[in-house]
Amino acid sequence: MTAQQSRQIRSTITAEGKLRLNLETTSVPEPKANEVVIRVQATPINPSDLGLLIGPADVSSLQVSGSADDPVVTMDVPKAMLPALAARLDESMPVGNEGAGEVVAAGSGAEHLIGKIVGIAGGAMYSEYVVKPAAACLVMNSGTTAEQAASCFVNPLTSLSMVETMRKEGHTGLVHTAAASNLGQMLVKICQADNVPLVTIVRKAEQVKILKDLAAEHICNSSDDDFMEQLVKALSATGATLAFDAIGGGELASQILAGMETAANLNAKEYSRYGSSVHKQVYIYGGLDRSPTVLKRSYGMIWSVGGWLLTPFLQGLGQEKVQQLRQRVVDEIDTTFASHYDKRLSMAEVLSEDAIKAYSKQATGEKYLITP
Amino acid sequence: MTAQQSRQIRSTITAEGKLRLNLETTSVPEPKANEVVIRVQATPINPSDLGLLIGPADVSSLQVSGSADDPVVTMDVPKAMLPALAARLDESMPVGNEGAGEVVAAGSGAEHLIGKIVGIAGGAMYSEYVVKPAAACLVMNSGTTAEQAASCFVNPLTSLSMVETMRKEGHTGLVHTAAASNLGQMLVKICQADNVPLVTIVRKAEQVKILKDLAAEHICNSSDDDFMEQLVKALSATGATLAFDAIGGGELASQILAGMETAANLNAKEYSRYGSSVHKQVYIYGGLDRSPTVLKRSYGMIWSVGGWLLTPFLQGLGQEKVQQLRQRVVDEIDTTFASHYDKRLSMAEVLSEDAIKAYSKQATGEKYLITP
Repeated sequence: MTAQQSRQIRSTITAEGKLRLNLETTSVPEPKANEVVIRVQATPINPSDLGLLIGPADVSSLQVSGSADDPVVTMDVPKAMLPALAARLDESMPVGNEGAGEVVAAGSGAEHLIGKIVGIAGGAMYSEYVVKPAAACLVMNSGTTAEQAASCFVNPLTSLSMVETMRKEGHTGLVHTAAASNLGQMLVKICQADNVPLVTIVRKAEQVKILKDLAAEHICNSSDDDFMEQLVKALSATGATLAFDAIGGGELASQILAGMETAANLNAKEYSRYGSSVHKQVYIYGGLDRSPTVLKRSYGMIWSVGGWLLTPFLQGLGQEKVQQLRQRVVDEIDTTFASHYDKRLSMAEVLSEDAIKAYSKQATGEKYLITP
Repeated sequence: MTAQQSRQIRSTITAEGKLRLNLETTSVPEPKANEVVIRVQATPINPSDLGLLIGPADVSSLQVSGSADDPVVTMDVPKAMLPALAARLDESMPVGNEGAGEVVAAGSGAEHLIGKIVGIAGGAMYSEYVVKPAAACLVMNSGTTAEQAASCFVNPLTSLSMVETMRKEGHTGLVHTAAASNLGQMLVKICQADNVPLVTIVRKAEQVKILKDLAAEHICNSSDDDFMEQLVKALSATGATLAFDAIGGGELASQILAGMETAANLNAKEYSRYGSSVHKQVYIYGGLDRSPTVLKRSYGMIWSVGGWLLTPFLQGLGQEKVQQLRQRVVDEIDTTFASHYDKRLSMAEVLSEDAIKAYSKQATGEKYLITP
């Protein structure tokens, strides 16, 4: 028997400052005990994939060579960024944080998974086939399709973990930006089910409508002239002092902190020269706007802005709790955790100029699904 | 017997958006049991006093009326700032976080303090006399002058608490900005005594010299062209991942985080798309530069920038530990915790145009002592 061939997307940044994207063909190894071979059928392009796929490369310098079926993309990487990339220079790296597909082969002890649709995370998902430990698979209930299961890790566990972070750090409500995203819609539904007060921030009327259709309560539109008033009102009503920000750049994080401070001081009985004693936290978990975060510090001294990353959070949460969250995802994959995609791409199409220019503009909110 | 009269500096922000500074004469109450009357002889103008004294008022709009001995200062406060100041509007507020002087009278149980030089914190120190609980006094060793004891709380306990924060949060080295300040010099001496690796950041050659004269080891000058190289080298050598920043505005906090990330990645064996797994923390404890904090997020996702405030930190540290720190201050007030002042002012002089324009420019590093 000939070994099964599999193509996968690779990203390389050279020491000379070039990013190269290409398709590489590898042989699928035989699964060892407790391993499965998955034929990947659906894998999303998440903002969190773009860091590895495109990195800091300049998309305007993009050039495509090779054939339509075997394209090679090159872009320039600003020289100033190379030192920070030292550890990946000249390494051809597989990409893709999560995806789903059918188990087509299994090592001993995992044969019962053959034919099942499983979700999987852990890199290299932009591949036709992957070999993974059976224990890492999220086994879908019967009737769930690979496309439904494609985004069963990053967004579902991130939105669930936002609520867990809130509980762990002693806050009693949440703020979320870019709140009409797939992840944002999941968070709305989780907060409704769990009775968590949630302030949602979007920047377009059509996004307000998406959230209203979900019966979200405290919706603020950052493009409105009275945004800060909307925000303070929502923060007062909810008492939310923890925000998760997907934008990163600009003044939004600072506006949220200022709004929290104003809301806290509305009820203050006495002037405190250092601001309210309420701890105000913004976690930046995305970078839809890569420009600098600008903090206009008008909110006292009890505030914090920091990065937030799913994997270390889950590590700190403990195995049992994580297993509960994963099971909730499986059971609610087509309701709470339903995802919507604007476009489907083959692997070769992922490396086309039009597609790259579209999905690298994360801020448009268009969501892409790769169907290898 | 006529009640002792005492003058004190008051700051009022009116609902109409005017800041007023004036001297108010009050009667000193008789000390109750376990209280002392202190004749304040020396009280510093700390950056942390300016928030209450001047607040967000526009110093360029300053006008002085009244007499040389009884001046009244007015300035405009930007209307946009008034909502954040709601809790202090139209309140005449005493000012002055710390100071020292001689105990001139005492209630029962505190008579043994009469004649002693004590340091005291807790507001209203820009007064000729204050009445305070005996337990709040830091009783100086014999031979210590009021001027030596004037700054025995804010800077000494802040610098000691920086090291305690480092220990509590699991870091093993410190970075400090504006590091040639009185507080910065204390921190150098504490770190030398306690074997804590310290990276100091200053912006002038003469400040480098001050630190070299103290035998500080890792000095970086942010005005040098190769500042980032100096910083990365110092961060690599010390492994410092916690910074205390007195500046606040501009890009320095971000540069420190970027330097920490580069230092962490220098030793990384494998590329991590989300940056190093080292937690990088900058606490902003001052605002010498009131412009926005600009974070160019090039340091992965494991970082945090936040406000830091002495009082809640000490509250979390526990009574016994705080007492140890206070005793260290008393015993080392003229060595580790020695302060230097550029100018001495009477209370009326504090309200003069020249003085306000000078001490409100905190960035100059000039240090003022009020001698009521």
